[in-house]
Amino acid sequence: MRILGIDPGIGICGFGLIEATGRAGAKALDYGVVTTIVDAPLPSRLKELYESLSQVLEETKPEVVAVEKLFFSKNITTGIAVAEARGIILLAAEQKGLPVYEYTPNEIKKSLTGYGAATKTQIQEMVRVHLELDKKPKPDDAADALAVAITCSFLYKLGQDKGHRFSNTRRK
Amino acid sequence: MRILGIDPGIGICGFGLIEATGRAGAKALDYGVVTTIVDAPLPSRLKELYESLSQVLEETKPEVVAVEKLFFSKNITTGIAVAEARGIILLAAEQKGLPVYEYTPNEIKKSLTGYGAATKTQIQEMVRVHLELDKKPKPDDAADALAVAITCSFLYKLGQDKGHRFSNTRRK
Repeated sequence: MRILGIDPGIGICGFGLIEATGRAGAKALDYGVVTTIVDAPLPSRLKELYESLSQVLEETKPEVVAVEKLFFSKNITTGIAVAEARGIILLAAEQKGLPVYEYTPNEIKKSLTGYGAATKTQIQEMVRVHLELDKKPKPDDAADALAVAITCSFLYKLGQDKGHRFSNTRRK
Repeated sequence: MRILGIDPGIGICGFGLIEATGRAGAKALDYGVVTTIVDAPLPSRLKELYESLSQVLEETKPEVVAVEKLFFSKNITTGIAVAEARGIILLAAEQKGLPVYEYTPNEIKKSLTGYGAATKTQIQEMVRVHLELDKKPKPDDAADALAVAITCSFLYKLGQDKGHRFSNTRRK
């Protein structure tokens, strides 16, 4: 199964395509980032993100999209812009008719390391090991996106994916 | 000048079109709400919002779009969904090539009543008076959207609009 993981962001949005094979295996098919011009007005950055991401979806042809869920523990102002970007990501996936799953940062950490408080470096190392890469994928946003895709592949195989798909919003 | 005010929301998104005339006058040309199905998955609601709003933009033919700015003082979880919806609104406006302005709830209250802590009822009454309507516009989300449009018309005429346009994001 081809899973496209996405790490939402307005300036840098990471993506990572994996092919989940066999019981626990997966290989990285493609990964990278989509960027927008920092000095451009927000609406134009959102349009840029929308167009670039729609192109990524067309080129990578995923069967499933997995997106990191947001938490505003740190910077709420930055968080608003990331949520605006995430709206664009969900729209682009929906327009391609793709099922979308979401995972919290904590779920991603637990899936990859068995430990909810794992560091970014630990996560990235597990991404490298799991995908049998020589080096950690760069940039970090792409590695994070691959981590989301791997999480999706794990939970899919375990049949624990149901709570993560947008079956309904549970938010008003 | 035709100004379309928008009150962002995922379940109910208000819109209000005014024609700003003369020094302080304005009349309501159209107002209403765009709704999405509460039980539908979030990505499909965002797509529904995108399509409905694009249609509103086509039908109302505004020259300028004014959108309320978000603050997460109350419910952060609801706030995330509203921000995701707001991303869609900005995208739809940008795709039509329209200039977009944003105003905080406080600026809207001050513009309409001269008082930053005005109640919703006071704001709606001022919307009614300013647009010379017999009754307060309903539903509330449409009245709120008209309030955003009126704020935009005031600040435009006073030449104080520059800080409100997305000249750049000032957010990462």
